Amino acid sequence: MKNYDAYLIDLDGTMYRGDEPVPFASAFVEKLAKKRIPYLFLTNNSSKTPQQVSSKLEDMGIRSQPEQVFTTSMAAAKYIKQQNAEARCYVIGEDGLFDALEKEGHQIAENDCDFVVVGMDRKITYEKLSKACLEVRNGAEFLSTNGDVAIPTERGLEPGNGALTSVISVSTGKKPVFIGKPESVIMDQALEELGAIKESTLMVGDNYDTDILAGIHAGIDTLMVFTGVTPYDHYATFPEKPTYHVHYLNEWLAHI
Amino acid sequence: MKNYDAYLIDLDGTMYRGDEPVPFASAFVEKLAKKRIPYLFLTNNSSKTPQQVSSKLEDMGIRSQPEQVFTTSMAAAKYIKQQNAEARCYVIGEDGLFDALEKEGHQIAENDCDFVVVGMDRKITYEKLSKACLEVRNGAEFLSTNGDVAIPTERGLEPGNGALTSVISVSTGKKPVFIGKPESVIMDQALEELGAIKESTLMVGDNYDTDILAGIHAGIDTLMVFTGVTPYDHYATFPEKPTYHVHYLNEWLAHI
Repeated sequence: MKNYDAYLIDLDGTMYRGDEPVPFASAFVEKLAKKRIPYLFLTNNSSKTPQQVSSKLEDMGIRSQPEQVFTTSMAAAKYIKQQNAEARCYVIGEDGLFDALEKEGHQIAENDCDFVVVGMDRKITYEKLSKACLEVRNGAEFLSTNGDVAIPTERGLEPGNGALTSVISVSTGKKPVFIGKPESVIMDQALEELGAIKESTLMVGDNYDTDILAGIHAGIDTLMVFTGVTPYDHYATFPEKPTYHVHYLNEWLAHI
Repeated sequence: MKNYDAYLIDLDGTMYRGDEPVPFASAFVEKLAKKRIPYLFLTNNSSKTPQQVSSKLEDMGIRSQPEQVFTTSMAAAKYIKQQNAEARCYVIGEDGLFDALEKEGHQIAENDCDFVVVGMDRKITYEKLSKACLEVRNGAEFLSTNGDVAIPTERGLEPGNGALTSVISVSTGKKPVFIGKPESVIMDQALEELGAIKESTLMVGDNYDTDILAGIHAGIDTLMVFTGVTPYDHYATFPEKPTYHVHYLNEWLAHI
């Protein structure tokens, strides 16, 4: 069994479910910290800032600093920076996305934009969608923080950012660059942030379609845990298997 | 040349553009009225009531009664009635859609709905989209007044109802039944409303992808006019040609 020098760790379904910590999540992170192995929490949630995510983790007894949180909004902001140091961005989203773009030095604008960036927005309006369409038709590059089509809530499955994004892609006929898992963009940005290399990094997550495929697409080994969205009885159907799988994270502690 | 006993006439691009009447639109309608040939104005606009559409036409000097306007919202309400005399409907839309459903005796409801009906809504919210997704996942039949992906406005192409509808279809994985042109549903309902038969009815319109294809799909002869969205230089590219085409409607007056 390989020794991994760095970990990328999913949050929802891996570290917590709703407001409850997942069993052994805290022990898993403690072991990494004790062994001084660098790790990043990697999330497709574009709405929250790293500070907000980190304090949620701390409230559940999971050791975390804001610097250890890497959101799809931060990945989007860094991806834009690689192309344009101070881009004009038309943004649909919540705090986490505006915050990430501004921290990377981009300008939030309403017209003549270089990029249209779409993240989850529970205050979506027709005017916001219209402006995004007009800017995309006007030549702005079209990014979306993630393609998740549904979000589990206590009411059932509500529309996710991938569903909101489809208004703009269907209307303009232009496909966005998706940043979040399972795409490689967020993985590449996270490795750079962590100062790690693919070959000795492990991606830990519960969702086959996002976490595990993200690892597979990016050429990063994966550890799948069955505490979240994908049930163990789907294992046989996976076209490509995760590198490792455990039912609970305590089964992995000896390998850290 | 066939003599037609009934006419279905598109509005936007055929009778008016924005707030201006199209040349010869009024003369065309006058000739039909004089010859006592029944006609219906047929529109994919789900937002307006027949009264609102009719007074817009009258203001432009085009003879019209509310009874001569048939909207995709009215077609949706009649389509539902064929399956359920008093259906519970969760509705995203504007005046025209609520009005049409209530006139057919359906009930506007928030839960346990038989149908989810989506029409153009410039006051769309995340909550409305969520409720629609939850109801569709809960088994409600999913209808959409039309699949138009973009609406021409003075600002450019803004998202149309087909683009808004995609939030729900992408999120739930369920495809809606589209009611409006180019689908046959609206054509069948309009013929019934008019008391006409396919073989002796003519569909008049400017938009190849909606008006002309609607006629072709429904087996109704078509008269295409180049005063609207589809330019004449596209004619050579049409996979199936309209039965007739004219540059302006005055060229057709002798055939009425």
